[in-house]
Parts: sequence; structure tokens; C-alpha cells
Amino acid sequence: MNRAELIKQIEGKKSFLCVGLDTDLTKIPKHLHSEDDPVFEFNKQIINTTKNYCVSYKLNTAFYEANGASGWLSLAKTINYIPKTHFIIADAKRGDIGNTSSMYAKAFFENLNSDAITVAPYMGEDSVKPFLAFKDKWTILLALTSNEGSRDFQFFEINDELPLYKKVILKSQVWGTSENLMYVVGATRTDQIAEIRKLVPDHFLLIPGIGAQGGSLEEVVDKAKNKDYGILINSSREIIYASDSEDFAEMAGVKASELQAKMAKYF
Amino acid sequence: MNRAELIKQIEGKKSFLCVGLDTDLTKIPKHLHSEDDPVFEFNKQIINTTKNYCVSYKLNTAFYEANGASGWLSLAKTINYIPKTHFIIADAKRGDIGNTSSMYAKAFFENLNSDAITVAPYMGEDSVKPFLAFKDKWTILLALTSNEGSRDFQFFEINDELPLYKKVILKSQVWGTSENLMYVVGATRTDQIAEIRKLVPDHFLLIPGIGAQGGSLEEVVDKAKNKDYGILINSSREIIYASDSEDFAEMAGVKASELQAKMAKYF
Repeated sequence: MNRAELIKQIEGKKSFLCVGLDTDLTKIPKHLHSEDDPVFEFNKQIINTTKNYCVSYKLNTAFYEANGASGWLSLAKTINYIPKTHFIIADAKRGDIGNTSSMYAKAFFENLNSDAITVAPYMGEDSVKPFLAFKDKWTILLALTSNEGSRDFQFFEINDELPLYKKVILKSQVWGTSENLMYVVGATRTDQIAEIRKLVPDHFLLIPGIGAQGGSLEEVVDKAKNKDYGILINSSREIIYASDSEDFAEMAGVKASELQAKMAKYF
Repeated sequence: MNRAELIKQIEGKKSFLCVGLDTDLTKIPKHLHSEDDPVFEFNKQIINTTKNYCVSYKLNTAFYEANGASGWLSLAKTINYIPKTHFIIADAKRGDIGNTSSMYAKAFFENLNSDAITVAPYMGEDSVKPFLAFKDKWTILLALTSNEGSRDFQFFEINDELPLYKKVILKSQVWGTSENLMYVVGATRTDQIAEIRKLVPDHFLLIPGIGAQGGSLEEVVDKAKNKDYGILINSSREIIYASDSEDFAEMAGVKASELQAKMAKYF
């Protein structure tokens, strides 16, 4: 999916909601455990009830890999099931030397056919560029994450007082463009979001961390939105585990619609 | 596998060789393509001819993920096939917020039963700790990588003149011990290896980058070896693609035995 198509989806739905399918086999309702593929069945029902309120789905690969090869199959089936109108993010946080990053790009862009992958910046340019070589596919580089541990290295400051996360953003900007490169910025980092928006006025930001992790939707939107909206705000646990009973999908839909209604005010 | 067992294997074999199974379906000999699982068949034969010369196998997950769910199955079958005497490294370069890193740890330590996983440090302590919680399992943290892009951020210097890779090593040391934490240090970074050894005199170092990437075995051993040996030196392409004909496994064995013979001089 290209940038214009993504913006069109956002405007059409008055939503920049991304639903995070962090589907944990131990947390899904008991009645699904008799299904052949409980994880896929769970995802399918969640997609059915949330798709009108969101423009994107983010699949956290860890939750699928924890189930081995069958988990990878649930991941592939879920991606196939998501409507082509939705922007599909493999939240994989990959990154390795060039020939290996090329294989990861092949895994996620060709084999799984996702639109985007999250990538860790530590290994630098030649570890990121292979992902940027795919047409209409996106690299979402970790800049400033939502977790406590982001304080360990990401705020690490150089002589000219630029912390590492800003250096990552400034340096990586020229590796791609606002047509194929986004940044992960945690919703718990509201003080920094406005500064990041100044550094990259046009790039999309993928913002996880509202809900369970404590970030506020309104604060984030105020600071991160640009003229094209330019944001995807992810919510995972708050939506997909809204209920642990037979009404889980219905309740996920309710939660997603509530978030979409809050977002609609900005259109 | 615990530290004492690993050292015993190294002393017994006079080898600190790790064979990297970066098995690319497009690079394996043609006659294997008629097999049900060509990647697994290739790995099996390579393991048979190299296992007497190495103490460890490193599986680069990208090469398996590129083949989707069946690739993940090849990965699992290969890990099962490796003798229990060998230290198994999932070269996965994972790392995410705590609950997600826990799922990755489950995927690689429980589901796949590898001994170790490589982890990216960018997200800090709470992204690394879940891996360190598993008994007799190892976290191998990226410190200084062998690729050109390592210059982009890893050498990034703070006011007190400590580059990021040293800060990663100093800070992470207290997260684990030399019994469950190793560091990745690229063989192409010989100037820095001696300095890193001073910072972590006891920790094992996983050193990729000899052979195809240009690092020299002798230079690396001189600078990195400690009283317990304390190194695993990886070679991938140089061994597994020593020949692209029917004698590929035999030639891989020859190459591995040559490297082991060079290592034996240090015992």
C-alpha cells in the first residue's frame, strides 16, 4: 500500500487506529480452544468486528513464534484474511547485516505479504536499506519506544546534546523517504513527540502505548498529527482482550468504535 | 547448556568453532531440491560432517523465515537433529517490550529448545531481562557488529568518550552474569576486541565475521581469548558453501577441520 492510499483510508474512515493482534494462546476465550487453529479463529472474529473502525492491523510476531511452525501458519492465515484495504504491519523488530536483512524482507514482504515491518536501528544503514528496496512496502524504524528500558540507551546524549533517538531519526531520514519510512514513537513519550514531529514533519509515526501501557490518545494526537494525519495509533490488549467470554469479538468492536469516535473529532 | 559444560566441550574438542547454518534455499546444491525438506537435508549432512570439529551451531532465523511456516519447521527439525553436546544459538536478534520479549524467550528457549538467542539492545533492560530469566539459557547481546553500518550508531560517543557499544556492555553486565550473558563482537573490529575484553574479562564473546566478511582468525583469537577460552568464533558461508556440488558436506567438513586445526594451536 502506498502513502496516498493509506491517507485515503484514514480520511475515508476518520480513523488512524491500528489494532494490535498480540494474540496470546493462553489469554483467548476458552471456547475457542476446540478450534483447529484457535489463534486464527480469534483473530478472524476480531478482524470482523473491528475492521470498520481501524485502518491497520499490527501483528506482533513474538506471539506467533511462541507456538512454533503452527504459530507461523496462524500468522500467515491472519495476514491473508485481513482485507486489502487495511495496512498490515509485521511488528517483528528485525535487523541484521545486509544479506540477512534481505532474507527478513523476503520473509515479511514477499512470503507473508505484509505492507510494513518494524526494524531495530542498532546495526545501522546497511541493516535497514534492504527493507527499503521493496516498492510500496514500508520500513518502520524504532526511534523512541514506550517501555521503561528506552531510558537505557535511546536518551543517551552526544556532545551536541542530541540524544540517540534523535540521531537515529536524523541519520535514517536520508535512507528512505516519507513514502517508505515511518518511525515508532511510544505514546508514553509525549514530551518528545512534539520534538520528533519537528524533525520529521512529513513522515508517518506508528505510536504504540495507549491503553494498557498508559499513553493518552488526546495528548498524543495533539502533538503528533500533521497535515496528512501522519499517524497510526496502535491499541492491542485494550481492544482484543476487552472481554474473555464468548462476546470477546463484539466487545473488541465496541472498544475499537469508541477509539474511532475519539479520533473522528480530528477530521 | 551451562558455562562449565560449554568450556568442557571446547577443551575436549580443542575448538571454539561455531558453524553458522545460514541455509539459503537458492544456494544449496541442485540435487537436494527433490528432497521433501531440502533445507533440513542440507543441514543434516552439514552437521554430520562438521560436528566433530565444532562446539556450536548458529541458526540465522531470517533464512528459515524466508520460507514461511515450512521454513520454521526446517529450523525446528534442524535444532532437534543437532547433538545435545553442541551449543545451539538462535541468531534471531530479537528484543521488544517485556511481555513480548517473554514470548520470544518462550519461542526460542522452550518451543525450539535452543541454548541461546542473540538480542538487540536498543530497547534496554526490560527488553533483555525476560531472556535472562531462563535457567541454563543464554542471552547474547549485540555489542559491536561486523557490518559497515555498525559505524552509524554503535561508535556514537558520549561526553565521557565512551562509545555506545561500550555503554551497552557496561550497563548490561549487571543484568546478567558470565553464566548467562555473552556479547556479539564482530571479527572485523579487531582494534576494539581487546578493549572489550578488558571490560568483560570473564564473559564469552560470540565472534562472527571471519571468512566471507574478512576477519582474521588469528588476530581475533589473540585479542579475545581469556583463561576459559571464552570465545565462540562463527563461520557460515565459508563452511556451508565450500562446494555447491554433491560433495558439499564433505567439503564443509574439510573446511571445518581446517579451522579447528588452526584453533587447536591455542590449547
